[in-house]
Amino acid sequence: MSASDTESEPGIGRVEAFSDGVIAIIITIMVLELKAPEEPGLAHLWRLWPTFLAYVLSFAYVGIYWVNHHRLLSHARRVTNGLVWFNLLLLFALSLVPFSTAYLGGQHFSRDATLLYLVTMLLPALAYVPLQRIIRATGTQGAAARLYHRQTVRKGVAAALIYLAGLPLTFVSPALGIACAGLVALLWFLPKSPVDSWFDR
Amino acid sequence: MSASDTESEPGIGRVEAFSDGVIAIIITIMVLELKAPEEPGLAHLWRLWPTFLAYVLSFAYVGIYWVNHHRLLSHARRVTNGLVWFNLLLLFALSLVPFSTAYLGGQHFSRDATLLYLVTMLLPALAYVPLQRIIRATGTQGAAARLYHRQTVRKGVAAALIYLAGLPLTFVSPALGIACAGLVALLWFLPKSPVDSWFDR
Amino acid sequence: MSASDTESEPGIGRVEAFSDGVIAIIITIMVLELKAPEEPGLAHLWRLWPTFLAYVLSFAYVGIYWVNHHRLLSHARRVTNGLVWFNLLLLFALSLVPFSTAYLGGQHFSRDATLLYLVTMLLPALAYVPLQRIIRATGTQGAAARLYHRQTVRKGVAAALIYLAGLPLTFVSPALGIACAGLVALLWFLPKSPVDSWFDR
Amino acid sequence: MSASDTESEPGIGRVEAFSDGVIAIIITIMVLELKAPEEPGLAHLWRLWPTFLAYVLSFAYVGIYWVNHHRLLSHARRVTNGLVWFNLLLLFALSLVPFSTAYLGGQHFSRDATLLYLVTMLLPALAYVPLQRIIRATGTQGAAARLYHRQTVRKGVAAALIYLAGLPLTFVSPALGIACAGLVALLWFLPKSPVDSWFDR
Repeated sequence: MSASDTESEPGIGRVEAFSDGVIAIIITIMVLELKAPEEPGLAHLWRLWPTFLAYVLSFAYVGIYWVNHHRLLSHARRVTNGLVWFNLLLLFALSLVPFSTAYLGGQHFSRDATLLYLVTMLLPALAYVPLQRIIRATGTQGAAARLYHRQTVRKGVAAALIYLAGLPLTFVSPALGIACAGLVALLWFLPKSPVDSWFDR
Repeated sequence: MSASDTESEPGIGRVEAFSDGVIAIIITIMVLELKAPEEPGLAHLWRLWPTFLAYVLSFAYVGIYWVNHHRLLSHARRVTNGLVWFNLLLLFALSLVPFSTAYLGGQHFSRDATLLYLVTMLLPALAYVPLQRIIRATGTQGAAARLYHRQTVRKGVAAALIYLAGLPLTFVSPALGIACAGLVALLWFLPKSPVDSWFDR
Repeated sequence: MSASDTESEPGIGRVEAFSDGVIAIIITIMVLELKAPEEPGLAHLWRLWPTFLAYVLSFAYVGIYWVNHHRLLSHARRVTNGLVWFNLLLLFALSLVPFSTAYLGGQHFSRDATLLYLVTMLLPALAYVPLQRIIRATGTQGAAARLYHRQTVRKGVAAALIYLAGLPLTFVSPALGIACAGLVALLWFLPKSPVDSWFDR
Repeated sequence: MSASDTESEPGIGRVEAFSDGVIAIIITIMVLELKAPEEPGLAHLWRLWPTFLAYVLSFAYVGIYWVNHHRLLSHARRVTNGLVWFNLLLLFALSLVPFSTAYLGGQHFSRDATLLYLVTMLLPALAYVPLQRIIRATGTQGAAARLYHRQTVRKGVAAALIYLAGLPLTFVSPALGIACAGLVALLWFLPKSPVDSWFDR
């Protein structure tokens, strides 16, 4: 770390290390909601399925953010004021996911809980935008970086639109709202996203 | 890390890594106080607003400490006994923030809770002073370091005075005490602080 | 870290750091299940033995995974998509261990709890397979790496078979299922495993 | 990190990073025992003093272990099997401190709780011995390292003897047992320990 630090410019390494710590805690404390039933019998275990399903979805969601954050910051070259504060804003938005996940599981995917869940998924997507703009402006500038930013901006816009579409669809059925959240996860898992194919035609 | 370690002088990297870990946990476990309501209905969600507001304020507070700590330690050159112990003292003071935050939210910003909250905000500000003195004495010594230390000492003194002013103001109204805490946060967010402008006239 | 980062290839260091964070949290939050009794007297302490025993076993289990992960990733050379996602899958599987450990201790090693425990021990073993295949294919290729992968694949297969054998044995007696979990731990603790000796004859 | 990794020898950096993570979590989750009272009034806050005092003592204790661990591992040169497993044993022993701290505070420093507390303080001291022996044998070998090991072995033996002496003294009065724990903390805080002065006469 210290190698990349100059006197007046603290290194990007500690921003990554702190973000790794916060994201690692966010992704792991969600499992504390999976409370082991005190009564014996597999029937009591089985009743935990909504909490478990919400956990799986949110683990994938936060995991995707870690991967994106990891890639985005690998393009950063210096730690600006903006980078530090908008990174904290992103971490704050992500820190609300355990709360909305607990609510989603505890309310058995009710309409209200699904709406709140989609909103807490939308918040990090919005906080990601200024962080990406800063790193695009001050980070590495090669062809690979340009390609990376173009593709992820597209995916980010697509994700935000899908979450927004999920809000009215949740009024039709919460399952449709959850399907939107799942669709975004799929979009990020695929190495070559359908969004790119569509744009690159 | 190992590159900067000599036989008798453990590197600054692990002090940063440990501090990052502790601060990351402090900033994240506060969200555990946001307990998802078991009853359905948005009215029950809405009742969480004091806990949520206290969380927002404390997240900003601890986040600012991380940023300051990150910058301060980038000026350190060697790990002295004093640096290690006063760093632990600062982490201890910060570790009380989740407690006073839970109390502030749970007591709906009562006078007693606001007083306790301001005190736990004052403690890290006091613990920061010896840490800063040590790093100023043993760390990097260029013009940028001198400017950095001068500006942050000013901000630190201003912050401590505002917290102290908040204590009697809380007896007038807890909202004034909380406003003081918010004012300090603002002071740190601004890249060029009004305190500097005032001094530099 | 930044030294090993090229423009398009984020470094392995952050994958290790994030995994370290998640595994450190998983291994440590299990101790929260050890709830200090509110009543005085050593008899109340003594009643915690099933929870304590489950904690010891799971600490060893997660600790072994950390050691294996640490060694495996030391052979990785680049961060591929597959490595990132299968690493997240492994962390997800490990994150279920605190849950099944709490259930095992809370149910006093009942048959159902032992079955669930063995299943959550089997899951990381399965998630480890694709991660190891990816690192074998894209990582360092010397004789030491080949020997390492051959030995750990053998141990991994042996461990999975012992966990599988533990499932029917648990129907005979939960103690036999737990003995299987303990046997796997022993297998990994030994530097030169009996599995190797058996294969190398 | 990657610089110090050879093909067959994973670096010491990840052992430090994982230990930092675990110790950071141990030291921070203890604050969760400080539960904010739901009733208003400073009298309810005041009743938390035993829990608070136990927290202060344990924070100092775990903090001292982190400092010692940090210094000890700065003398390590290679990651052996023994180092990894005995390091995990030390982390396991330390992970019991939050439990005994909660018990100590919850039982208002009763005799039984003080005995348990002293035992969980003795365990890491014992687990530290083999770790130190391994690093003394395989780590850096200069005069500074020899001096370091000689001094810390003395302090370690003195600490263990004081904890042991605390056990019968607790039967006289728990305050004497707690005083022993405080005495050990003092011993480690002092840069030039009285133990050394006594030996060096």
